[in-house]
Amino acid sequence: MSSALPTAETGDLASSLARTAQAIESLLEALLSAAPRDSEIARPEPLLSAMRHGALGGGKRLRPFLTVETARLLRGDAGQALRAGAAVELVHCYSLVHDDLPAMDDDDTRRGRPTVHKAYDEATAILAGDSLLTLAFDVMADEATHPSGEIRAALVLALARASGLGGMAGGQMLDLAAEGRFDGGRPRSLTEAEIRRLQAMKTGALLAASVEIGALIAGAAPEARAALVGYGRALGAAFQVADDILDIEATPEALGKATAKDQDRGKATLVSVLGLDAAKRERDRLSAEAIAALAGFGPEADVLRAAARFAAERTS
Amino acid sequence: MSSALPTAETGDLASSLARTAQAIESLLEALLSAAPRDSEIARPEPLLSAMRHGALGGGKRLRPFLTVETARLLRGDAGQALRAGAAVELVHCYSLVHDDLPAMDDDDTRRGRPTVHKAYDEATAILAGDSLLTLAFDVMADEATHPSGEIRAALVLALARASGLGGMAGGQMLDLAAEGRFDGGRPRSLTEAEIRRLQAMKTGALLAASVEIGALIAGAAPEARAALVGYGRALGAAFQVADDILDIEATPEALGKATAKDQDRGKATLVSVLGLDAAKRERDRLSAEAIAALAGFGPEADVLRAAARFAAERTS
Repeated sequence: MSSALPTAETGDLASSLARTAQAIESLLEALLSAAPRDSEIARPEPLLSAMRHGALGGGKRLRPFLTVETARLLRGDAGQALRAGAAVELVHCYSLVHDDLPAMDDDDTRRGRPTVHKAYDEATAILAGDSLLTLAFDVMADEATHPSGEIRAALVLALARASGLGGMAGGQMLDLAAEGRFDGGRPRSLTEAEIRRLQAMKTGALLAASVEIGALIAGAAPEARAALVGYGRALGAAFQVADDILDIEATPEALGKATAKDQDRGKATLVSVLGLDAAKRERDRLSAEAIAALAGFGPEADVLRAAARFAAERTS
Repeated sequence: MSSALPTAETGDLASSLARTAQAIESLLEALLSAAPRDSEIARPEPLLSAMRHGALGGGKRLRPFLTVETARLLRGDAGQALRAGAAVELVHCYSLVHDDLPAMDDDDTRRGRPTVHKAYDEATAILAGDSLLTLAFDVMADEATHPSGEIRAALVLALARASGLGGMAGGQMLDLAAEGRFDGGRPRSLTEAEIRRLQAMKTGALLAASVEIGALIAGAAPEARAALVGYGRALGAAFQVADDILDIEATPEALGKATAKDQDRGKATLVSVLGLDAAKRERDRLSAEAIAALAGFGPEADVLRAAARFAAERTS
């Protein structure tokens, strides 16, 4: 559907994404340097290396991009938004390190490289995930992220609520349960409503929080914040349906990881419930819903509109 | 050394510990109830149950006790201190759930009950630990914990720095490395200085943070805060040497977990480096050092002094 995405806009989005990805990479590199910071005792190897393996050198950095672009839309500080976005990305990276573990999704490669437990070992991967998660809150609560303690505490709260039991981790639990890890090991068919809830938790919550955190950085008014959270939720849902579709349609080379895993595992996705064509229509509907949530903003929100299209139409 | 601990004081400490433990249990019970809170989507089983298994029904709750008693000493708010102490305890509980995993210390029982991965499974235990850690920051950043956002952000930062790469998780990494998980699987003998650093990170950092967090809740002046952090560090070190001694001297029944594990694993402890008698003297010296750090306080700090003796002289 590249016809829906004019070349100029694609170019703008691609260069904006690349610019933020580069800035995030530099910031994560600095946050994961060997020198202990204030009140830290030491930064032991190989834990630091494993954290760097899990956090550096890859990914679209879509979550920090959403944080940075939302803050920019509302004239928030770019450096603050970047730090807050890095904290969100650290949570995303921790979740990948733990999800890849043998006891979880048991994946050997990620972004074309060995997963952390393959490059190191399981114990190190567990601790690296734990430490990336902890570092996310460290970064968010640090004065460098925002001068107001009220805002920093609100940022920590938004990130924690989106990531834990009631958000991402809870969604991963529902996903494992649906794959038949319990109840005698048989995959359970979920209803469409159950799949939507699972995906809203596993993927949607952190994507929506990425947007909300950008709004918090910029001190958004309640209406603007609510509209942007609506945008983030719809974008997150579109992103996940697109993921389910890519699992069927993309090549392992394009994704940098194995494909057709959902089908092999008998996993319930919107594709399995609705069929491929209806799932694509739903993906496009959600993308349009995200764009509609931005109706109150002018052309300055075009990058976020393009991101909503990208979330749906990406090929990797 | 019960002669150092008069009966009246022991009674006071025991009843104070029990009172805080009960209050923490009630608060954790409420924090781990089934109803989703503001901005949470759902609280899925069996993740919630596994978190409850890992956090409820046991332990001395020494860390929240230190937070509560430090805040009380400085006339801080008791309810705020209890919430902050519960956040610290959630971090402690997460660390136990993950440390017990097969890839880590591979323990089947904890406090006389099956460990979380035995009662559930590994994937659920990993996610339960992750979610307990995330909940800790959620609780700390919540307005109910302190009216000042500046203080809440400082609490989050103190907890994160003590728990992550540069603190507890880093200490666990050093511990696994010393046990010979890497470098061909042979235990490595550590120097006394290396053991002290490992223990300061693995156990000491969070115990010291428990005290510091109580001081932050009460808005302590810098000198009082520094004295209390010194107390916390020495108490933490005493606690860990006592732990190493208990591993040799206590029965599995008294500890509710296997003993002589350190020796079996060829693990480097202060007992293995100094010998049992010298380790006991060092434990008592550290306990006295903790008490000396409280010299600027009057009899209102007697409970903390008793806690320093207890950390050294406990039998379980």
